Amino acid sequence: MLTKVYNNRATLLISCPEKPGIISIVTNFLLEHKANVVHFDQHTTDPQAGVFFMRIEFDLENFASSFEKLEQDLHVLARDFSLDWQLSSSEKRKRMAIFVSKADHCLMELIWRWKSNEIQVDIPLVISNHPDLKEEVESYGIPFYHIPISKETKEQAEQKTLELLKGKVDFIVLARYMQILSPNFISKYPNKIINIHHSFLPAFVGANPYVRAFNRGVKLIGATAHYVTNDLDEGPIIEQDVQRINHRYTAEGLKTAGRHVERRVLAEAVSWHVEDKVLVHGNKTIVFT
Amino acid sequence: MLTKVYNNRATLLISCPEKPGIISIVTNFLLEHKANVVHFDQHTTDPQAGVFFMRIEFDLENFASSFEKLEQDLHVLARDFSLDWQLSSSEKRKRMAIFVSKADHCLMELIWRWKSNEIQVDIPLVISNHPDLKEEVESYGIPFYHIPISKETKEQAEQKTLELLKGKVDFIVLARYMQILSPNFISKYPNKIINIHHSFLPAFVGANPYVRAFNRGVKLIGATAHYVTNDLDEGPIIEQDVQRINHRYTAEGLKTAGRHVERRVLAEAVSWHVEDKVLVHGNKTIVFT
Amino acid sequence: MLTKVYNNRATLLISCPEKPGIISIVTNFLLEHKANVVHFDQHTTDPQAGVFFMRIEFDLENFASSFEKLEQDLHVLARDFSLDWQLSSSEKRKRMAIFVSKADHCLMELIWRWKSNEIQVDIPLVISNHPDLKEEVESYGIPFYHIPISKETKEQAEQKTLELLKGKVDFIVLARYMQILSPNFISKYPNKIINIHHSFLPAFVGANPYVRAFNRGVKLIGATAHYVTNDLDEGPIIEQDVQRINHRYTAEGLKTAGRHVERRVLAEAVSWHVEDKVLVHGNKTIVFT
Amino acid sequence: MLTKVYNNRATLLISCPEKPGIISIVTNFLLEHKANVVHFDQHTTDPQAGVFFMRIEFDLENFASSFEKLEQDLHVLARDFSLDWQLSSSEKRKRMAIFVSKADHCLMELIWRWKSNEIQVDIPLVISNHPDLKEEVESYGIPFYHIPISKETKEQAEQKTLELLKGKVDFIVLARYMQILSPNFISKYPNKIINIHHSFLPAFVGANPYVRAFNRGVKLIGATAHYVTNDLDEGPIIEQDVQRINHRYTAEGLKTAGRHVERRVLAEAVSWHVEDKVLVHGNKTIVFT
Repeated sequence: MLTKVYNNRATLLISCPEKPGIISIVTNFLLEHKANVVHFDQHTTDPQAGVFFMRIEFDLENFASSFEKLEQDLHVLARDFSLDWQLSSSEKRKRMAIFVSKADHCLMELIWRWKSNEIQVDIPLVISNHPDLKEEVESYGIPFYHIPISKETKEQAEQKTLELLKGKVDFIVLARYMQILSPNFISKYPNKIINIHHSFLPAFVGANPYVRAFNRGVKLIGATAHYVTNDLDEGPIIEQDVQRINHRYTAEGLKTAGRHVERRVLAEAVSWHVEDKVLVHGNKTIVFT
Repeated sequence: MLTKVYNNRATLLISCPEKPGIISIVTNFLLEHKANVVHFDQHTTDPQAGVFFMRIEFDLENFASSFEKLEQDLHVLARDFSLDWQLSSSEKRKRMAIFVSKADHCLMELIWRWKSNEIQVDIPLVISNHPDLKEEVESYGIPFYHIPISKETKEQAEQKTLELLKGKVDFIVLARYMQILSPNFISKYPNKIINIHHSFLPAFVGANPYVRAFNRGVKLIGATAHYVTNDLDEGPIIEQDVQRINHRYTAEGLKTAGRHVERRVLAEAVSWHVEDKVLVHGNKTIVFT
Repeated sequence: MLTKVYNNRATLLISCPEKPGIISIVTNFLLEHKANVVHFDQHTTDPQAGVFFMRIEFDLENFASSFEKLEQDLHVLARDFSLDWQLSSSEKRKRMAIFVSKADHCLMELIWRWKSNEIQVDIPLVISNHPDLKEEVESYGIPFYHIPISKETKEQAEQKTLELLKGKVDFIVLARYMQILSPNFISKYPNKIINIHHSFLPAFVGANPYVRAFNRGVKLIGATAHYVTNDLDEGPIIEQDVQRINHRYTAEGLKTAGRHVERRVLAEAVSWHVEDKVLVHGNKTIVFT
Repeated sequence: MLTKVYNNRATLLISCPEKPGIISIVTNFLLEHKANVVHFDQHTTDPQAGVFFMRIEFDLENFASSFEKLEQDLHVLARDFSLDWQLSSSEKRKRMAIFVSKADHCLMELIWRWKSNEIQVDIPLVISNHPDLKEEVESYGIPFYHIPISKETKEQAEQKTLELLKGKVDFIVLARYMQILSPNFISKYPNKIINIHHSFLPAFVGANPYVRAFNRGVKLIGATAHYVTNDLDEGPIIEQDVQRINHRYTAEGLKTAGRHVERRVLAEAVSWHVEDKVLVHGNKTIVFT
């Protein structure tokens, strides 16, 4: 939500077992490469023996050549100090595929924020198991692929989808996509598939959360954006929010009200993913907002 | 939260199967008794064949005699039209027992709001299965009873508790009371026992919700005030609220942060109960705030 | 947000000086007309000598003829008891004009909620002092009129606008319309023009609220939807909401973040206006949500 | 709110004009002193030519001697690199004076959080211009001083107050203290006096904010905790929050509802101040939560 295009900006994510001096090591490295640190975030699960996480946003002069050199040297540094790392550049926009079914609210929210340059990605394609949103998507100049799925054709359909995506996208957003992805599919995009679940997880795991929320008589409904893993609705949570309701809301009314929480929560989570603000640690996330 | 003492105010709650003209019938009745309506709230689960709920707050002149007459005539009206009803008077404060264990935050919130006249009740006694809070409670002039409970003595302890309460209290608040009441006990106070559960129900039903919230990596923690029924953590929800947290919170930190949501949510629910704003419908509540 | 089309539903708004029995009078009247009350809301500024407000949503059988009869008789009732009233029917959708300048976020939110049938209005036209959004608006089949305004042409431009609107619209939404309407224009649509101000009024009345919020170092930014009166930014507030920010937000970042509050707050206010849930009392509103 | 006592923990705050390598310089320094970084937060107002802010929480072995050495060497480092700095140790609790008048809600919130060890300070004294809260304060073993103030005696009263405080306190909290401090008094405690204002500043600057909020018809009321400067209600904002209200609230009802926001906002601000999470930059704050 804070994004602005900077021509010479890079973001470095690092995680490693906690070790003395790790901040000095990395900041000295950046200093040697004449990086000008803009934002620095850090987290440790335990200062004695935990896992260390770091996000550094920095500017470089002579960006193209400096960035290349820094990236090369980073391989060496990472090897020497056993760092997991990820380096991204403001010059290279992430590529996002959107999967939808029939509901358009999450899709439209993402498209609107993309059009208004708030979420700075490329959208090479939208894929759906229904044809309903074809015209709407194509009106924005985005290719739309209709890949129907039935129990019998699921494997084939996923295969076809993977081929479409191959080499074209960096991550996938399930914008109320009403199909469960297979473990094989998920394994191709680990922590790269973001789903929006229409409840405040872990409440109402599974189907029909609004009907169940209505029956339980809750006073707040919610939505949860999370990375997709093989355990349905159990992946690392990126963002959650709620909306107050009252006895006047029908089950249908909850659904309508919930749409606004869903699109807000999903769009925030996507923004943070795009801006490399989310680090995954086991089944949890560190989000440097 | 909006309470102010009015010397001549009464509140009438009515529920009945939906029937044509029910509002007219009741408001005509009140008009005949010279009641001046101040607040009128209504809800129906289905205008064709649902259940109808109504709350009317009204002023009466010559309060003592008018109120008595109105109450008598209400019996007749209720019989004729099959109304469930409850009538209360600003002249007669509700009497609230508080059950606690060792944690004092919910207790102190209730006492503070009671002292500042925000929750207008009498507190005839506080009962605890631990002696820890005795001095604190007694310093406010409230009698404190320590009734220890073990598996073996549970039945006896509950019996003793019921005797202490008998004729003395109108409702009970479990302010982080770490004991499960028996069906026999609950049956004596149907929809008259308010509990605070330290999670956003139905998420984390049961024990240790903060530890489980920490492990699940949720981004909001919550609290739920509900009436106690025989199904643990399943009674009608009165109020819920949440608090944003992040990756820096330890399980212990969640607990600390959660205390503030708990006392806020419980105090609101108690206020509404005291002001006759909560009507129960099956396992849900209608709250006229 | 709770809207659903009911073919036989009407809504009656009433305000009058507080008088004994007013609820009975009106509900008896509705009963005689075989109206089945679905929602009943009431408010009084002072039960002794204040102003009384009422909103009743009801169903009618044989809608067309019953509604006509009820409306006729209402004239008589209103005269006898000095009631201000407004009666609307689910059969007749309100007609909403949208005024915009260059920013599209509020416009698009309204269009999206209109398309998804969440805000049930007709949109006969969009008017703008800039041509920028023409294509976007027309792609939804909504007529777009570009009426440029300069100091010199303001009177003429307003005249032209009034002619375009005449007989075609019931209310107007200023969806980030960057022009100040003249008293003459406003007098034609009293309490029928809704504006969105990009601050938490009365903080930052006037221009550039986000820059001023940034300079003041506030921790929350907000937006306010209000009816337009001759006193700039001083009209009756319909809805407000806020969003938490922190020191990392630039003035530009506040603006971006604020857009989401703006569209949410404006859309809610418009929904409530459409559903006849907002009653104006002097410079304040009663909103029966 | 996350506080826990650590016996060997220190916190270092640094601000300086932005310069290349400042993070490396400081983290190398800490590494040399065998400090184990636990939390690291950073902010810059402009990576090219702004002001740089840093907060580092770290553990030291052999705390007493290590801390002393580190503090000595820090003087040299700060001189060499023109750093403003502040170093605090978990071994030395901050000392907080509370100023009150008649309302006890903010006072009691602070005392409750202090007693439950959530705000880890010492409270050497409470000072009031009224005697009303004497007994309540003393029941917690905290010395209470009644220093009445009138126009004529103000200078003397402040002088007496300053003498009482001298050498005894590190910061002051105005917990609904209904007196304006003189510039002379404020100059003794720059950015060390925290006030709670009962509105969402800058809305309703000055007196009677709740009455004015009622008259303006706002839909949310708020509270603001800020450092006290000579410009009334204009000091750096530390924290703000709001509470939704509706047309049913009287001006008195707003006041009652507002008390809960006030005590929550003030307690948060005090917590952050105690934990050295607030840095002042001109008239704004950076809060590392």
